[in-house]
Amino acid sequence: MTKIFDKPEEFAATGLRAFNHIFQDVVRPVAGGALRAISGRKGKVTLLVGGGSGHYPTFCGYVGEGFADAVVMGDVFASPSTKSVLDIARIAHCGGGIVMGFGNYAGDNLNFGIAAERLRAEGIDTRIVTTTDDVASAPSDAHRKRRGVAGDIVVFKIMGAAADDGIDIDGVEKIGWLANDQTRSFGVAFDGCTLPGESDKLFHVAEGRMALGLGIHGEPGIAEMDFAKPSEIARLMFERVVGEAPVSSSRVAVVLNGFGSTKLEELFVLWAELEPLFSAKGLTIVAPLVGEYATSLDMAGCSLTVTWLDETLERYWRAPVNSPALRRPLIETEWVPMNAQHVERVEPTYAVEPSAVGRAAGACVGKALEALASALAEAEERLGKIDAAAGDGDHGQGMARGSSAAAEAAKKAVAAGAGPETVLAAAADAWAERAGGTSGALWGEGLRAFSSELDDAATPTAHALRQGVRRMYERITQIGKAKPGDKTIVDALAPFVETFESALGDGQPLVKAWQRAAEAAEAAAQATKDLMPGLGRAKTHGKASLGHPDAGAISMALSAEVIGSFLSTKISK
Amino acid sequence: MTKIFDKPEEFAATGLRAFNHIFQDVVRPVAGGALRAISGRKGKVTLLVGGGSGHYPTFCGYVGEGFADAVVMGDVFASPSTKSVLDIARIAHCGGGIVMGFGNYAGDNLNFGIAAERLRAEGIDTRIVTTTDDVASAPSDAHRKRRGVAGDIVVFKIMGAAADDGIDIDGVEKIGWLANDQTRSFGVAFDGCTLPGESDKLFHVAEGRMALGLGIHGEPGIAEMDFAKPSEIARLMFERVVGEAPVSSSRVAVVLNGFGSTKLEELFVLWAELEPLFSAKGLTIVAPLVGEYATSLDMAGCSLTVTWLDETLERYWRAPVNSPALRRPLIETEWVPMNAQHVERVEPTYAVEPSAVGRAAGACVGKALEALASALAEAEERLGKIDAAAGDGDHGQGMARGSSAAAEAAKKAVAAGAGPETVLAAAADAWAERAGGTSGALWGEGLRAFSSELDDAATPTAHALRQGVRRMYERITQIGKAKPGDKTIVDALAPFVETFESALGDGQPLVKAWQRAAEAAEAAAQATKDLMPGLGRAKTHGKASLGHPDAGAISMALSAEVIGSFLSTKISK
Repeated sequence: MTKIFDKPEEFAATGLRAFNHIFQDVVRPVAGGALRAISGRKGKVTLLVGGGSGHYPTFCGYVGEGFADAVVMGDVFASPSTKSVLDIARIAHCGGGIVMGFGNYAGDNLNFGIAAERLRAEGIDTRIVTTTDDVASAPSDAHRKRRGVAGDIVVFKIMGAAADDGIDIDGVEKIGWLANDQTRSFGVAFDGCTLPGESDKLFHVAEGRMALGLGIHGEPGIAEMDFAKPSEIARLMFERVVGEAPVSSSRVAVVLNGFGSTKLEELFVLWAELEPLFSAKGLTIVAPLVGEYATSLDMAGCSLTVTWLDETLERYWRAPVNSPALRRPLIETEWVPMNAQHVERVEPTYAVEPSAVGRAAGACVGKALEALASALAEAEERLGKIDAAAGDGDHGQGMARGSSAAAEAAKKAVAAGAGPETVLAAAADAWAERAGGTSGALWGEGLRAFSSELDDAATPTAHALRQGVRRMYERITQIGKAKPGDKTIVDALAPFVETFESALGDGQPLVKAWQRAAEAAEAAAQATKDLMPGLGRAKTHGKASLGHPDAGAISMALSAEVIGSFLSTKISK
Repeated sequence: MTKIFDKPEEFAATGLRAFNHIFQDVVRPVAGGALRAISGRKGKVTLLVGGGSGHYPTFCGYVGEGFADAVVMGDVFASPSTKSVLDIARIAHCGGGIVMGFGNYAGDNLNFGIAAERLRAEGIDTRIVTTTDDVASAPSDAHRKRRGVAGDIVVFKIMGAAADDGIDIDGVEKIGWLANDQTRSFGVAFDGCTLPGESDKLFHVAEGRMALGLGIHGEPGIAEMDFAKPSEIARLMFERVVGEAPVSSSRVAVVLNGFGSTKLEELFVLWAELEPLFSAKGLTIVAPLVGEYATSLDMAGCSLTVTWLDETLERYWRAPVNSPALRRPLIETEWVPMNAQHVERVEPTYAVEPSAVGRAAGACVGKALEALASALAEAEERLGKIDAAAGDGDHGQGMARGSSAAAEAAKKAVAAGAGPETVLAAAADAWAERAGGTSGALWGEGLRAFSSELDDAATPTAHALRQGVRRMYERITQIGKAKPGDKTIVDALAPFVETFESALGDGQPLVKAWQRAAEAAEAAAQATKDLMPGLGRAKTHGKASLGHPDAGAISMALSAEVIGSFLSTKISK
């Protein structure tokens, strides 16, 4: 809800005063509105726009080079007075006559209309172009009787560019009406807005519902329905707007507008569904806008605006503009449809190992990672439950996702003929990338450190594996900064490494040594569990989540068969 | 709340894909992030920024000329993976080394940190600058341990401009740390955000309260208090931030940032309180930003960021930039404090009437308007109550405000020595301006039409008054499009005009004729009241509120003494 205000009746005027301070690189203050910081060229047509407050950046954000010369602002949701329009028109007039642009609402028609009459009586040629883009507000055969909504930005931008280009008043008026007649908008509301000083919303949309065609001052919509998926919302808006295509042009300016509380990342998600509909219909999008352009205080919802362009309209839509709402240089880009965009990426490459020994050893690493992934997939639910007690319950998912990605990457590397170091390094990177979170990064780094002890051209020796697990342990504790006893994977890794080393030192064979190490890790994980459930460190920003001892124990508990396969690669040589 | 999403886990990736489509005039897609549409000059330092999603335009909006070369985006509120950082860094590297910019959070430190290590191992000089501007997150003597919030935009913008300016990697890193060390932010939260797919907010701020220093992922704040007026919120944020001034520079970049649901017009209202505090402290604001720069989905609240500038930082802060979040040419403007800004306005001028007769007659019009204003002031409450039954209850206020402004304007015109036409025209304009709404515009236009029948050099004749009220009636019905019987002021004006005309036609004296006309208006207003309470037309957009018959009757019911004074002006000649 609208919270920041002192005297509600001064909300609009106070905001306007601040606006004129904030944007003084492009605007300067005039009583009741704003002017361009530097007036337009003498003799040019003056574009004067305006309407009620509460819709920022409509209308005051539209003043600047390549856009409006002046704006007249009314109170929240109220037309500016005739006198304001008149006063500002007289100050702003550059000599070439005035075109007034505003949305088609009774109060604005009245006040701008009277002011235009009086300006004409004073000898100033004054024309009016009203925006009437809201398809929900009247039938298609009464287009010019409709309300003006987010179409404002397209129609006024095009008129402003034409006026700055030196087009005369007949021309600017004609271009303005053409732009309006080729513009259609349709909005869906998810919730109403709160006027400053009011404790309740001006209007409501029931939870879980959405109102189609509801106006930006709460004017009644045309229907209500259950809240839908982005694909359905996109199709619904697209069909309403594009279904009424006023001309056959295949080039369109498109505005996806948020009403206030629907955020830009949500609009992006909607755009991902919306844009393909244009491509499929053979429509080329030109310089689209996705953001907040015609808001209604903190109203939730969004609207789609489409303007069918001819060559002139497109030139002026692409023209440079420098206003608070829209700043951009001349746009020369041709938009490529989303599906046709080239996405740069680094494709993984694997050093191919020339020796058969090395390739066979690589395959053994791949098999070990596969075993590890299936053990963690089996443990996913259990790890999730343990994590849920202290964290957000996603540790099982993360470990399963990471190890599965690692096994997948290892498989690819093995297929490409890579040796053990390369296979394990590829797996390490994939684990970190897909597991996400801090524990994913730790596992990735740990396995990568492990891999550095392997030799692509050779079967891993017991010594290399001993060095590998030690390096892994060191890297994880170095980055994660956890010590044994912190109830992290380190609690399982530490006894594993120590047992493995001492067993090998005692002359035990590799398989046996690994199994004993795995048992030690499992015992340590059990012991930790008795002390406290779940993760030892809170999963909040600023404190790393370093994974659960159980996950460490499960990961290291590879079967004798798997570990044994490292030895058997010697035979297969 | 966050409503538009399909699969919550794909929210960030889908949004990023759309982002890369929408802004293809400045960016191009890379797996996991975005690159500049046109790569930076070969050999320049590469600025790579990144962090979690959910904070748009932080971070992906920061890619473009004069800003970052590339961005790496994580999932909602999660660090990007080491692999993403690495892959994008390798693609984006222009040859002059890489400076990584990100907020100081554990996950980002880990993933960017590991990637930086590996890049260095590959021979790419890689530096890290973390933003640590949030004063609420650690004591002032541990500035570099703090969290990074909206300071990102200032620190990264300055680094990006320096890198594009050809500064080497040591220089860019140094400027980045300097910018960070001279940047402080403090935020207040009014309510939490909703993660896509969650039915409840991630955190809550109790209704009517505000949380000081609450982080943009819900990290605990430092205090909570009752929601305050804009002046108090402004002072509170200002003191926290400026109270920690790290250097004595008097020139500051300032960002007033909305978290998501706190709208720009509210931020403007806050700015009106905030800006004078800077002036009072002798601080000169340079190219301020007020808008949404570091959001937290739909979180409510705002933050203040101040960067103390030296000459170098200011040059790069003012440098041109063309990114989705910030597009502006080189800023050369020197900001003038709000109170010192010249506000253009049209000062009313009155034609001074040379004849004493005219001036005396002007004074009589002034007296009539004074009587009218006091009658409407007296009736304010009654009219408000009538209006409340069908409209928003402000009709009494509007009439009182309008007529009082009219009397005031008339008084000034009389003091300036204006004749009756000028006095009434001045009053008419003032009424329309101050009353607001449709009925204000109608009264203004009506009185203005009336004034056109008066002669500045002469005492109004009975004929002129008869023509005047008729013209007033005609103008009001012409503009308002109401007919008798529509239960508007026309219902009172119509019998007034007819009775006045016929009484004068019958040879009755002016005072008598006016009184009879006023009685007829009053009777008509009473009759209308029996038919229905309140205003005849709904006070909604699209249907004009044309005022209540009572208001018409009261307005026209001037006393015999007032009306008589028009006659007596003959004597005072």
